Amino acid sequence: MSDKPTVSKDMPPTNSEKRATQIYRVAAELIQEKGYEATSMNDIAKKLKLTKAGLYYYIDGKNDLLYSIIKYGMQNLEDHVIGPCKLIADPGERLRQIIERHTTLLMDLGGAITILTDETQKLPPANRRKIVELKRDYLDFVRKTLKELKTKKKMRQLNTKIAAMNLFAVILGVARWYNPKKGWSSQRTSKEISKFVMGAILN
Amino acid sequence: MSDKPTVSKDMPPTNSEKRATQIYRVAAELIQEKGYEATSMNDIAKKLKLTKAGLYYYIDGKNDLLYSIIKYGMQNLEDHVIGPCKLIADPGERLRQIIERHTTLLMDLGGAITILTDETQKLPPANRRKIVELKRDYLDFVRKTLKELKTKKKMRQLNTKIAAMNLFAVILGVARWYNPKKGWSSQRTSKEISKFVMGAILN
Repeated sequence: MSDKPTVSKDMPPTNSEKRATQIYRVAAELIQEKGYEATSMNDIAKKLKLTKAGLYYYIDGKNDLLYSIIKYGMQNLEDHVIGPCKLIADPGERLRQIIERHTTLLMDLGGAITILTDETQKLPPANRRKIVELKRDYLDFVRKTLKELKTKKKMRQLNTKIAAMNLFAVILGVARWYNPKKGWSSQRTSKEISKFVMGAILN
Repeated sequence: MSDKPTVSKDMPPTNSEKRATQIYRVAAELIQEKGYEATSMNDIAKKLKLTKAGLYYYIDGKNDLLYSIIKYGMQNLEDHVIGPCKLIADPGERLRQIIERHTTLLMDLGGAITILTDETQKLPPANRRKIVELKRDYLDFVRKTLKELKTKKKMRQLNTKIAAMNLFAVILGVARWYNPKKGWSSQRTSKEISKFVMGAILN
């Protein structure tokens, strides 16, 4: 999806990948704090103690800023959640890993990137369509997993569409309430979240 | 909390109450669409086909707009959810009714009011404190209910704080995905939501 650095699948992140995460994270946090219109490329460069040239390596400009951040979040979702989970044959184990990997990812990236990913209506139409399509693919993947559980009679009597919406609400909720400075580690929290959701869905 | 009309507890809503709901709902939807700064009292009056005097009966002015909407949402929460549920002795039944009443309320008021209620950081400090306190009271009430279930050994091995956060995420998520023009009624949807959450929490 992009030739810019993302956190790679199996290897520990390189310095350049760590730098990318830090940049998108700080940009997302500034936007959340000040609003999109009020946040300039200068503000972001200053906060990161980067030259503008350094920042432009990651983000082509203010017009590209929101899309760059959302694309970065979706690329990480693909690399760390969707890709690995597609390889899991058992739908119960696949569901558990979707929940744990997605919550761990968003705690590790910081909640602001995830919250911004909801703001697709602010993107230009062509970019919006690309992101909406990626989100729909992910929703379909989760619903297909729920339907497999239903066919195998491993799921409670629940509507799969609403169950998928509830599952996403719990996962994305973590981006709003999780505080890395207080309480549990991201790993322990992600296991607690999957216990809650798996309890709701499995019979 | 306010001498302005709210939907009353047991009686069907009067015309004035219906009018209040419509006004806060349309104002919240405009703010969501255009952003808070860009929404004027004029825009709201125009959309509602109201005179400015008519609108000022409900909202004292632009400065008061966000607080009026959030207060209206919190007052309805008190009247329709917290008040009635405090009278329920059994913690399981109380939890079920909290979930069903809260989701029904937010579907009936429209999601925009609920989504705005998250924007307390935009309120002046004194107003923000009042709203934050009301929210904390509600969170405490739900956590107390979960702790009662735990004491009675009716709850799974879950952390009550995280379980409460997940419960709110599912309820508030409905404000983002529910479409009254498509799919299930608010009543049927609220039962489906409580089935999901009760399944997650009860053993």
